[in-house]
Amino acid sequence: MARHRKRTLRATEYIGLRHPFTPQVIFSDDYIARMHDAALDVLEAQGMKFLLPEARRILAAAGARVVDDEMVHIGRDIVGAALASAPRSWRMRAANPDRERDYVSGALIFGPGAGCPNVTDLERGRRPGSLESYLETLALQQSFDVIHMLGPSAEPQDVPTPLRHYAMMQAQITRADKPMFVYARGRAQIEESLHMIRLGLDLDQADWDRGVWAYTVINSNSPRQFDRPMAQGIIDFARAGQVSVITPFCLAGAMAPISVAGALVLQHAEALAGITLAQMTRPGAPVSYGGFASNVDMKSGSPAFGTPEHVKFQIGSGQLARHIGLPWRSASGSAGNAADMQAAQETTMAIWGALMGQATFVIHAAGWLEGGLSFGYEKFLNDVEVLQMVAEMCTPTPATEDDLALDAIAEVAPGGHFFAAAHTMRRYEQAFYPPLLADLTNFGSWSDHGALRSDQRATALWRRILAEFQPPPHGAAAADRLAAFIAARTAAGGAAPQD
Amino acid sequence: MARHRKRTLRATEYIGLRHPFTPQVIFSDDYIARMHDAALDVLEAQGMKFLLPEARRILAAAGARVVDDEMVHIGRDIVGAALASAPRSWRMRAANPDRERDYVSGALIFGPGAGCPNVTDLERGRRPGSLESYLETLALQQSFDVIHMLGPSAEPQDVPTPLRHYAMMQAQITRADKPMFVYARGRAQIEESLHMIRLGLDLDQADWDRGVWAYTVINSNSPRQFDRPMAQGIIDFARAGQVSVITPFCLAGAMAPISVAGALVLQHAEALAGITLAQMTRPGAPVSYGGFASNVDMKSGSPAFGTPEHVKFQIGSGQLARHIGLPWRSASGSAGNAADMQAAQETTMAIWGALMGQATFVIHAAGWLEGGLSFGYEKFLNDVEVLQMVAEMCTPTPATEDDLALDAIAEVAPGGHFFAAAHTMRRYEQAFYPPLLADLTNFGSWSDHGALRSDQRATALWRRILAEFQPPPHGAAAADRLAAFIAARTAAGGAAPQD
Repeated sequence: MARHRKRTLRATEYIGLRHPFTPQVIFSDDYIARMHDAALDVLEAQGMKFLLPEARRILAAAGARVVDDEMVHIGRDIVGAALASAPRSWRMRAANPDRERDYVSGALIFGPGAGCPNVTDLERGRRPGSLESYLETLALQQSFDVIHMLGPSAEPQDVPTPLRHYAMMQAQITRADKPMFVYARGRAQIEESLHMIRLGLDLDQADWDRGVWAYTVINSNSPRQFDRPMAQGIIDFARAGQVSVITPFCLAGAMAPISVAGALVLQHAEALAGITLAQMTRPGAPVSYGGFASNVDMKSGSPAFGTPEHVKFQIGSGQLARHIGLPWRSASGSAGNAADMQAAQETTMAIWGALMGQATFVIHAAGWLEGGLSFGYEKFLNDVEVLQMVAEMCTPTPATEDDLALDAIAEVAPGGHFFAAAHTMRRYEQAFYPPLLADLTNFGSWSDHGALRSDQRATALWRRILAEFQPPPHGAAAADRLAAFIAARTAAGGAAPQD
Repeated sequence: MARHRKRTLRATEYIGLRHPFTPQVIFSDDYIARMHDAALDVLEAQGMKFLLPEARRILAAAGARVVDDEMVHIGRDIVGAALASAPRSWRMRAANPDRERDYVSGALIFGPGAGCPNVTDLERGRRPGSLESYLETLALQQSFDVIHMLGPSAEPQDVPTPLRHYAMMQAQITRADKPMFVYARGRAQIEESLHMIRLGLDLDQADWDRGVWAYTVINSNSPRQFDRPMAQGIIDFARAGQVSVITPFCLAGAMAPISVAGALVLQHAEALAGITLAQMTRPGAPVSYGGFASNVDMKSGSPAFGTPEHVKFQIGSGQLARHIGLPWRSASGSAGNAADMQAAQETTMAIWGALMGQATFVIHAAGWLEGGLSFGYEKFLNDVEVLQMVAEMCTPTPATEDDLALDAIAEVAPGGHFFAAAHTMRRYEQAFYPPLLADLTNFGSWSDHGALRSDQRATALWRRILAEFQPPPHGAAAADRLAAFIAARTAAGGAAPQD
């Protein structure tokens, strides 16, 4: 948290993270090549259904064969051309230049739990997402360096859908300073949202063109289908030079084959189809490979996250992304219904899965509960603790002669202690990660302070963060610039989302 | 859990685990060599204090220089000879041959939270360990395949210390069937404990000699000191062909230098000293390298676990262990005071640290709270969930043509589902890890069932496990064989622990 940083002397660098670990593998290179080839076969022989006529026209113009009106058979040569023109990296721009990140393989970027229809906290309970909770969860995101890009944690359901994007964009532009998220809910909303970024941040054309200012997430309707808003989003984001994160949501055993390899073949085919649509719309458009495969619970049919299969999917997705040379998006998450050990374990497991798969962008990294049906305030803060610990692990471990501490070892007698050693005194303020929320005091002291669990302790912290929250300096001027546009568009009834 | 396995059709293999991941590095090979050399310098120039005369005599006979009566300067040639004679692997024997494991680099062996003076559960609260809780926590360990070796989870403090080892060994021999733990609390207790294993399991000399039947954990008194019972334990275990797990407990900033590299140099020097004592006692005696370095919380001075520094120590320890070619022991753990998100996150982080460092034996892998001052029943079960998930990740991911599921992908229409696909029907019973404790149902169903957190759900599970617990088949005969010995020794007043 930026505020915490200023209170201590310890410098932290939680923004420009690079993966610290060697990526792992679950499949041989040969088998990965076989999976890639199988996905190309699926696209060619089985085809992908695009419900949007414009998408079919673009792909047909590129040489794809459209049959039965909506089914598009995409040849491997077209996919190959798309993979050749897809960029390997781009700059994610932000109101605050210090918050900008290169979206590139090897980078480690965290996004918050997103897309949640409900929110929950220990004080107010579980409730539908509202503008109030959207603003609150945005403030929580803005308050931690380790949350690198903004996301729609809570859905502001009390704002009518034709006006909702004005509220969400206004908040992101004026109350935060990180790379922004725009929902792909039709051309009108996308164009207005991107316009608001340019207007609010007062960007000229050159500035706008220098990098990427917004991302959207495109979920295919697995298996083998893109609905109208999703295909429209790919097209419109590509045309505008903004990034689509193509993320098939392949739940093995439900919307995807039950085997790890089979679900990945389907995911890969769908992701390649989305990437191809982006590139055939505008070669060189930024587009991210994405994987969010996990398994369903075979007892209840519910999605599961942070499972062994989820981790395997993450590692396999990383292999496929590296096979095609693109940065990729993964996700953490939890199916748990409360901020308890299950939720913590699932999310932490999935974070490690993303590390093992060397995911570029990890969405749902903090706050996700109920498989995304709820955003938990207390869970968010506990998850941020894990993300900060991961960020600390990204820092190279110093390896000088002074780090060997030979003088200190000689200085302290057997059975003594190092608390007062000169080596300790020189370093103790910088030495270790100071926890955000973890209580490391002993049982007696902890009991004297109310014996609060970590979820209970988090309540006081989010209350304090929200009470002290200050929008970034550029916010007021940006709000002024946006006011007339929002008023006029609102008076005109807004822009309805695409069906 | 063995019982669960029989109830489902899904086969699991949680015993013979091998590490699934490439070990990671935090230091260059050159720097690791420098650290090893620095540790040898410490042993030679600064020396190691051995409070036990017998240890000093053994090391002196091997060529070490003893000064000031208790300080032993160990030359690098002596350490080199010890590392040459230390075995690279040995068989951990058990009453049940299916529970036996090779202790060797690349194997992944889990031990429970151990050495706890207190126990806690949601029904009965926190209380001092007793024989009752020792037996209960032993039954919990015995009930899960993924707990591979027994450990003293709870200290039976209501049994007088001269008799306590009889109770602990009787329970391990008659109520469990896994490799056993013996405390190093003096020669008399060690000899009697090992005698009880041979007697209880009716082992002849040949059987006894074929592998290792018991392990102990040797903690040096960092910095640079071994007390009398610890040195005695190394000597007596080496003589008996049983394994000492040499584990300096180097808390960086307290009993060790504050830098990661410095604490590891001290750890390495102390571990090498213990290994050397074992090998000079009996060349070829099984002895494990060990590392349990973590940091202290600089605010409270308390030990911290599952921190970024802890993970770095684990990775660095693994590098040092591989440098000398020995299998090694790490530890998970948590400083948390309750079975909450903090405790889950810390323990899960440390489990992953052990995976990244490719630790052979991971102690405190389930149930540890308060930095070891308490064993939590509910935490144990939640941690076992993580261990079982790790065990599932150790299983190779199938990679056949049938796993590609091309027929299933062709069979299911766009927007359809795979629930009824032939590929799914053939596989669904085996496909995914069935959770032990995680509740994957939706919020409504979870609420209807009482809205229980995972710690609360665990209460019902441990009650059921304890209610249904059956000692292994060999237990009754073993108890008969032990009865007279225990009665006679008890009548004679037992054997007091060594000061």
